[in-house]
Amino acid sequence: MVSKNQIKLITSLQHKKYRNEHQLFIAEGVKVIQELLVSNFVLEHLFVTEAIFEKISPSQKTLIPATDMKRISALTSPSSSLAIFKIPKPVEREEKGLIVALDDIRDPGNLGTIIRLCDWFGIKQLVCSKETVDLYNPKVIQASMGSISRVNVSYLDLNEFVSNTSLPVFGTFMDGKNIYKEILPIEGVLIFGNEANGISSTLEKIIKNRIAIPRFGDIQKTESLNVATATAIFLSEFRRNTL
Amino acid sequence: MVSKNQIKLITSLQHKKYRNEHQLFIAEGVKVIQELLVSNFVLEHLFVTEAIFEKISPSQKTLIPATDMKRISALTSPSSSLAIFKIPKPVEREEKGLIVALDDIRDPGNLGTIIRLCDWFGIKQLVCSKETVDLYNPKVIQASMGSISRVNVSYLDLNEFVSNTSLPVFGTFMDGKNIYKEILPIEGVLIFGNEANGISSTLEKIIKNRIAIPRFGDIQKTESLNVATATAIFLSEFRRNTL
Repeated sequence: MVSKNQIKLITSLQHKKYRNEHQLFIAEGVKVIQELLVSNFVLEHLFVTEAIFEKISPSQKTLIPATDMKRISALTSPSSSLAIFKIPKPVEREEKGLIVALDDIRDPGNLGTIIRLCDWFGIKQLVCSKETVDLYNPKVIQASMGSISRVNVSYLDLNEFVSNTSLPVFGTFMDGKNIYKEILPIEGVLIFGNEANGISSTLEKIIKNRIAIPRFGDIQKTESLNVATATAIFLSEFRRNTL
Repeated sequence: MVSKNQIKLITSLQHKKYRNEHQLFIAEGVKVIQELLVSNFVLEHLFVTEAIFEKISPSQKTLIPATDMKRISALTSPSSSLAIFKIPKPVEREEKGLIVALDDIRDPGNLGTIIRLCDWFGIKQLVCSKETVDLYNPKVIQASMGSISRVNVSYLDLNEFVSNTSLPVFGTFMDGKNIYKEILPIEGVLIFGNEANGISSTLEKIIKNRIAIPRFGDIQKTESLNVATATAIFLSEFRRNTL
């Protein structure tokens, strides 16, 4: 059974304020929880609706009915398991290699997908403006599929970071230079902007290299690519010659 | 005001069975509706909560209160506008150029994103197995952002199609050949599989060319890329030398 206090705590963790206060976050679904467990995240407690996760000690695991899972889950269709993990201490940021920078990405699904892409392409550092959606948002955890254990995510003043870095800085703009024709360095900072407004005008002023994915279709089209699919293409281009 | 019968009709269009019966589909949000209007989709009726879409004649437009919009919308946060469009007659399929084939993609967001990517990369033909999510599902319309007007989507027997095509056939597999090292043709069929199970084993048997996006990070990782981000990378590779 889940107590009233537990329900209150767990549902409060859907909000950044309470995640910060308790230094805890929730993860749902067997696959994501498994990935976090093998990646040295510290488990606070696990709730399951069936006999799974046999290696977890009974003191850290509670078997609950599906009706209780529905009360604590943030998902419309709850899975068989919900875990509470401790938020780890921040790892020190290293300024080398290819660094991805996000200027105010608001959609948790996009941030989760971008973390997963960074992981795939061996990118260890992701820096985010302070307005970017929180890493421990349950939907980010869901979409990142355990990749958060291998990508170091920092929240910082992005204008300050970009002004002070010694690495070459690339910004992604609709009117940038054709990415397929550019010589891309192994090290650098690659910036993606907000879903609706792109990179902020303050930050834009200090970016030297403007790059873009050219359009291949008809000219009259107006839409842009979704930021997560654009990230996939840019990272592929930066990495394709390094294998 | 929206009548009871209208509410019944509109909410029924969230289901494929009734979309087929009425040959109608719904689109929500100003941007998507605008794109469909300029792309020769035939408007059946438009519901708005404020004075927008001034060019639409009063006989085709009804101003409704937000409470009514909530009753007809499929979205958790309804927008200011919902349109009913006629499902257009199928366009004849042309077997040339690069054709994307989907084997049982179930997530409407993935199909919508893939349609948008096809549009960006100038791909005119998308063929789907019959089990693939329906093109006129409201969430597909939402995610495709009007690109459905420029990409010809057909549902067919994919095994039959692949067996009979004269174009070279490429399947995306985890253990395929490194896409960055392959010489890729301008014309061909590029197949993506189901989110959980990949390409079906029956189809796999008749695919000659197996390709993959290599992993760049640590070896112990187990996850794959989301099918929409993988599509972004494969299409970029097929198209990058054609500009």
